[in-house]
Amino acid sequence: MTMDNGPQRAIAVDYTIRSASREAAVRKAYGIALEQTVELAHDHVSERIRRNWVGDVVRLEPDSEERWHCRILYNPELAGGELSQLLNTLFGNISLQDGIRLDAVHWPEELLRQFGGPAHGISGMRARLCVPPSLPLTCTALKPVGTAPHELAELAYRFALGGVDIVKDDHGIANQPCAPYRERLQACQEAVTRANALADGRTLYFPNATAPPQRLADRLAAARDAGCFGVLLSPWICGLDSIRWARDEFGLAVMAHPALTGACFRNSHGIAPDLLLGALFRIAGADASIYPNVGGRFGFSLETCEAINQRLREPLGGLRTALPTPGGGMSVGDAPDWIRRYGPDTMVLIGGSLYAQGDITAATRHLLQALGR
Amino acid sequence: MTMDNGPQRAIAVDYTIRSASREAAVRKAYGIALEQTVELAHDHVSERIRRNWVGDVVRLEPDSEERWHCRILYNPELAGGELSQLLNTLFGNISLQDGIRLDAVHWPEELLRQFGGPAHGISGMRARLCVPPSLPLTCTALKPVGTAPHELAELAYRFALGGVDIVKDDHGIANQPCAPYRERLQACQEAVTRANALADGRTLYFPNATAPPQRLADRLAAARDAGCFGVLLSPWICGLDSIRWARDEFGLAVMAHPALTGACFRNSHGIAPDLLLGALFRIAGADASIYPNVGGRFGFSLETCEAINQRLREPLGGLRTALPTPGGGMSVGDAPDWIRRYGPDTMVLIGGSLYAQGDITAATRHLLQALGR
Repeated sequence: MTMDNGPQRAIAVDYTIRSASREAAVRKAYGIALEQTVELAHDHVSERIRRNWVGDVVRLEPDSEERWHCRILYNPELAGGELSQLLNTLFGNISLQDGIRLDAVHWPEELLRQFGGPAHGISGMRARLCVPPSLPLTCTALKPVGTAPHELAELAYRFALGGVDIVKDDHGIANQPCAPYRERLQACQEAVTRANALADGRTLYFPNATAPPQRLADRLAAARDAGCFGVLLSPWICGLDSIRWARDEFGLAVMAHPALTGACFRNSHGIAPDLLLGALFRIAGADASIYPNVGGRFGFSLETCEAINQRLREPLGGLRTALPTPGGGMSVGDAPDWIRRYGPDTMVLIGGSLYAQGDITAATRHLLQALGR
Repeated sequence: MTMDNGPQRAIAVDYTIRSASREAAVRKAYGIALEQTVELAHDHVSERIRRNWVGDVVRLEPDSEERWHCRILYNPELAGGELSQLLNTLFGNISLQDGIRLDAVHWPEELLRQFGGPAHGISGMRARLCVPPSLPLTCTALKPVGTAPHELAELAYRFALGGVDIVKDDHGIANQPCAPYRERLQACQEAVTRANALADGRTLYFPNATAPPQRLADRLAAARDAGCFGVLLSPWICGLDSIRWARDEFGLAVMAHPALTGACFRNSHGIAPDLLLGALFRIAGADASIYPNVGGRFGFSLETCEAINQRLREPLGGLRTALPTPGGGMSVGDAPDWIRRYGPDTMVLIGGSLYAQGDITAATRHLLQALGR
C-alpha cells in the first residue's frame, strides 16, 4: 500500500517479531502484510490491489534478543467501519502463527471519529457522581453466583448506603436460573435507588449485560428501561462492537471487563495488554476498563498496569479519556497507596476485601474515608 | 460442589497447571475452582453456596515436567444455557493468570442438548451436495479484499463451473466499501446459481456474515433471503453463540473460521486448539470448522490437526459430527495425500493454490479429479 501518511491516513501497526535472522524476519514481516490483507502470495496480486490494499512494511529493526520491531501501514478501509473487522485485520490470521506480538496501533483521525470512544469518560463519570478531579472513584461487585436476586439487592443496598460510586454485578453472574437477569436488574436497581434516597447518595448500579448477540439488545434495553446509567460488558466474549451498541443505541455508559482476554497476553505472541484493555476498549467506547492490578490474584506487572492507565488517559484524537479500574485482589488497606501511585483519575474496584469485613456498609465507608472522600 | 456424577451431571473440565511444587499446584487448582465460580475466598462463602456452586477439584496428578493434570467439576447451571457464560466459566478470569491450560471438557448430556450442535453436520452436507461417504468435500475462497462485487461474482462463477462444493468469502472480506456485503452477496449467489444451472452443479456460496452484534441479524437474514444454504462466521470475533443464532433463527449452515483464536494456543497457557476449534465450535453448531493444516503457513502440528478432526467426528451425546476443514496453504498436489491421512470425512480448503494456476475452473476440475470426484 502506498499512502501519504502526513496527515496520517493509514493505520500504523507495530508488531514485535521473534526471529533468529534478518532474512526470516523480513519474510515474516512481508508475510504479515499479505496475510492480514489479501491472503495471497505477492505474485498473485494485481498491481492495483497491491498498491491499495496490501500492507506496507515501513520499519523493521532488531533489538538485542532476536526480536524485531516491525511497523506495517494498513488501509483504514480494511476495517469497513467495524471493530470486528478491525480486530481481524490487526491479528486475525496471524494469531495462528508463532512469535508475533501486536504491540501498538497509531490511529488515523478518521478511524477514531468512526469508532468514537467513551460517551462519558472520566469527566462525565465524575460529573454524574459529583466527585471532584482531586479524588478517586470506587466500585464494588455483587457476588457470589448462586445468590438470589433479593439477596443481591440487599447487598447492593448496603454498598450504596456506604456510598460506593458504582456497584456492579460480578461478571460471573449473567442469566443463571438462580438470579435471572431481569429479576436481578429490577431488584438491585430499586435497592440502590432506595439507598440513594435514604442517604442522599449517588451510587450507580451497573448490571452485567454480557450475553449472546441474539440477547444483547434485550439486556441493554432492560437496563436502560430500569433506569441504569450503565452496564458491565465482557467485550472479549460478546464482541468489541457491543460497547458501541450500548453507547449509541441505548445511551448506556459501559464498564469493560477483561474476561478471557488473558489468553492473548503472552510475551512472545499475542496482543499487548495496554493495547487491548487500554486503547481498544477505550476506542470502542468503554468509560471504564477493569484490569487485574499488580500484586493481586493475577500476573500483571506494575509496568503493564501503568501502560494501561496511560492508554486510557493519554490524548487520542478528540476521544474522551476512560477510567482505569484496577481490581482483582486489591484491599481496603492498599487502596490509598495505589491512588497515590496511579493518580486520582482512577476507579478502585474492591470486592473480596469489603466482604471480608462482614459489615459491608461500614467497610465501604471506611474505604471512602481512607481515600479522602 | 458435591455432585453425583453418574449419570454425569457436572461439567468436568481438565486443566494442565504449571507448578514447581505440589503445594503450589494444590493452591492453584483450588484457586481456579473459586475464581471461576464465586470469586471470593473460601472462608467468605456460605456452606450452601460452597456445596452448590464452587467448583470441585476431583483430580490433581503430576506428570514429568512440573505439570499437573487437574480436573474440576462445575455446576452446569453456571452457564445459564449461554455459550458466552460457558466460556467465561471455563476460562474467563483465569485467562489472566499464568501457566493454566484448558485442555478438555466432558459434557453432561443436558448441556449438549441445550447447545445442540450442527443442524446438518457431515451427513447433512453430503446429502445437500450429493457427495457419497467415500469421497471428500472441497471448498475455496473468494479473494482478495479490494476486489469489486462483480469481479468476486465472476470468480465464484468460475469456481462453481469447476464443481467446487463450497465457495466462501475470504474472511478478510466483510463489509468494506469496495464490496459491500449485500451487493456482494447478491452478485455471488446469482453467479453460483447461474453456473450450477449451466453445469448441472450443486456448488454452494457461503458469504462471510461476521459482523458486529448489532448488524449480525441483518447479515444472516440477507443470506437466507438470497437463498444461501450457509454462511462463514469467525466465532472468536462475533461470539460463539452467533453460530447458534444462524442455525436456529435463520436456518443457515455454518462454516466456522479460526480468526483470532490463535492468540489462545500457547502450550503453557491458554486453550487447547482441539477443544476450541473442534469441540466448542461443534457444540455451538458449526457444520464445518476451518483450521490451519500442518505444513502450510501456520504452526499446527500433525497431532493437533488430528485431535481437531477427532473432536469434530467422535461420538458426542446425540450431536451430529462436523466437517474438519484443513486449509491455510494446502495445495492441489498435496490434497489427495491429506485425504488419505485424514479420511474422506474431510473438506479440503484450497485458495491460493487454485489462484496460482490462472484458469481457476480448470484448476478446480483438476483438484476434484485428483480427489476421485
